Amino acid sequence: MNRVGIIGIGHGVFGRRSDATVQELAFEAFRAAMQDAGIDRDALDASVIGSVPEYHKQRSLAGVVQEYLGLVPRPTWLTEVACASGSAAIRTGWMGIKSGLHDVVAVIGCQKMTELSTPEILALMGRVGEVQWESGFGTTFPAYYALFARRHMHEFGTSRENLLQVAVKNHHYGAKNPMALFRKEITLEKALASEEVATPFQVYDCCANADGAACVILASEEKATELSDKPVWLDGMGCASASMSVLRRPSLTGLPSAQQASSMAYEMAGVTADDIKVADVHDCFTVAEIMAYEDLGFCPKGESGRFIEEKQSYIGGKVAVNVDGGLKAKGHPIGATGVSMTVEIAKQLRGEAGERQVPDADVGLTHNVGGIGQYCFVQVLKKD
Amino acid sequence: MNRVGIIGIGHGVFGRRSDATVQELAFEAFRAAMQDAGIDRDALDASVIGSVPEYHKQRSLAGVVQEYLGLVPRPTWLTEVACASGSAAIRTGWMGIKSGLHDVVAVIGCQKMTELSTPEILALMGRVGEVQWESGFGTTFPAYYALFARRHMHEFGTSRENLLQVAVKNHHYGAKNPMALFRKEITLEKALASEEVATPFQVYDCCANADGAACVILASEEKATELSDKPVWLDGMGCASASMSVLRRPSLTGLPSAQQASSMAYEMAGVTADDIKVADVHDCFTVAEIMAYEDLGFCPKGESGRFIEEKQSYIGGKVAVNVDGGLKAKGHPIGATGVSMTVEIAKQLRGEAGERQVPDADVGLTHNVGGIGQYCFVQVLKKD
Repeated sequence: MNRVGIIGIGHGVFGRRSDATVQELAFEAFRAAMQDAGIDRDALDASVIGSVPEYHKQRSLAGVVQEYLGLVPRPTWLTEVACASGSAAIRTGWMGIKSGLHDVVAVIGCQKMTELSTPEILALMGRVGEVQWESGFGTTFPAYYALFARRHMHEFGTSRENLLQVAVKNHHYGAKNPMALFRKEITLEKALASEEVATPFQVYDCCANADGAACVILASEEKATELSDKPVWLDGMGCASASMSVLRRPSLTGLPSAQQASSMAYEMAGVTADDIKVADVHDCFTVAEIMAYEDLGFCPKGESGRFIEEKQSYIGGKVAVNVDGGLKAKGHPIGATGVSMTVEIAKQLRGEAGERQVPDADVGLTHNVGGIGQYCFVQVLKKD
Repeated sequence: MNRVGIIGIGHGVFGRRSDATVQELAFEAFRAAMQDAGIDRDALDASVIGSVPEYHKQRSLAGVVQEYLGLVPRPTWLTEVACASGSAAIRTGWMGIKSGLHDVVAVIGCQKMTELSTPEILALMGRVGEVQWESGFGTTFPAYYALFARRHMHEFGTSRENLLQVAVKNHHYGAKNPMALFRKEITLEKALASEEVATPFQVYDCCANADGAACVILASEEKATELSDKPVWLDGMGCASASMSVLRRPSLTGLPSAQQASSMAYEMAGVTADDIKVADVHDCFTVAEIMAYEDLGFCPKGESGRFIEEKQSYIGGKVAVNVDGGLKAKGHPIGATGVSMTVEIAKQLRGEAGERQVPDADVGLTHNVGGIGQYCFVQVLKKD
């Protein structure tokens, strides 16, 4: 057996971080993770940086972060797959250890979204959609996911309220997360009265851009056992791709990449969806979490509306989902998000999530989507 | 023993490829590599894309390439470390196989440098230098390397002619490479008469941006032996980082990351510099090849001038360097370059390089630099 363990986790405050450069954000998370692991830099062999580089004025981001963290001359490089860049970095670090190249690797997801102006950011984001046939004709990200939402409502009777119940839940838990961008509860009434964005979406259906960083320290089984008395294991690593264009998708009510990535991860970890006690899923829009319930097998196809209605994704329900606030309330620094999810699930499995702790959490999952599901990374984490 | 083998190589024509999008360039190289390997897509488990995404109007490049190559729903992601992005992709693919996650992986380096205007490209490239203290004050890439050149000349008496002798050699061999951007010989006199760029550099000291792609198919030892009768083995994988800023370097006459990455790669492969018969090194400027001779141990420190003067890096000399034309004559599509190097060395070890074949080539090396040496990846390849 040769597992890869998480021996340190660190997370900065997500938000408009005009107080910090991207490398300073990275350091904040890295320092916390190293202190958590109780190791110093001598123990580290390499780093992997998850980020979408073009949002920063300084390019060659891996080098900048590497130097600022004091990790020169170790190997480093950056992984990019839009909003799933952080999970690609974890997968890369995992492979680095599992391959025998490295024993201990720092994985840092970091992103500054506020260096550029809003029009610049909108232009960049639009270009993550298929530029030749789609984004040029108005399919911004809210518009893409609004298509998914309308289709889900049409086919399965998912209600407007169901979508916003996801937001209400995630704000409920976000209020308990000191690292979250929005730390206040919202009511369904308030959400239903919010400004329209792209039919059927209103403001509270959409997550918010944020600056932020998160870090995990990965180690080989031998090193993890030696260095940590509470390692969490990355036992299932799923990853799949899907077409850029929604025109070439078989259905608009789910993400095929999420279905495939989760099957892979479950099989590799030797678990089923029923074993998952806590999950962080990619709720960039409310419908994304609705689709994730089904794509991940938490409920049968088409029944997500009832699932959230019955609070099955709250603590105490079938599986606790996004009890750190999710992208919705925690904020979405795109390169950091995947690592942030892994930090949260590791914390839950360690039983250290405080007032949002999921009882008896022994198996957890992260579900990190890039673009409109062009990529999906699913990881299954276990306590022992 | 569990080696990783190269079972297929493919390379497109480098140049101003207004005939092709970046995904079409990727396909050109991918198809050639798949035909070379004699396999079809069913044999592939995953892909890794090496590229610098911000030069393309379409973002989320891994997804675009993945779909265009017909590789959905396989895992894919992109690696970025400036001009070493291609080698980071190979290292990632190598780890994916070595970790046991995958058996056969396609690694594609691809880059379109001509989608943006020249001022846009210059602005982007400048930002790969350290923006806070250096690039804002005029250290473009030619200026950075010109600093290295002047220091090398000052400390070791390396002559203006020595630098341009590198260009003469690389054009000599580039003329024999049908995939090269510049396929004509130049004379030292012509080079010495060319326009000034950044003292001491003239036009012929500098490589040229180009569009292009290259692809290698990697396989586990078991699969490589099964699928190929001429696998080439990736036995040494070195990687190191260095400070962003030249102000924080101990010396300007070499790249510490190259020295460290090559030591790692030699040790891992069980070879020394003396065993290397053929090498592709990162000659973005003539002095970069001069420094590489020393950083890689091909000649003692400070003796590179004499080394090129004596034609020790020609076929028939101590070690044949850049006999595909190098970045100088072949062109430099930044994300493709590392993969292009690996394609060339594999071809040499297979004895298929035609009129630029290095006799008895059994051990070869690639040396791919990101930025001004913030990253260096060195790979040692063996025939058997």
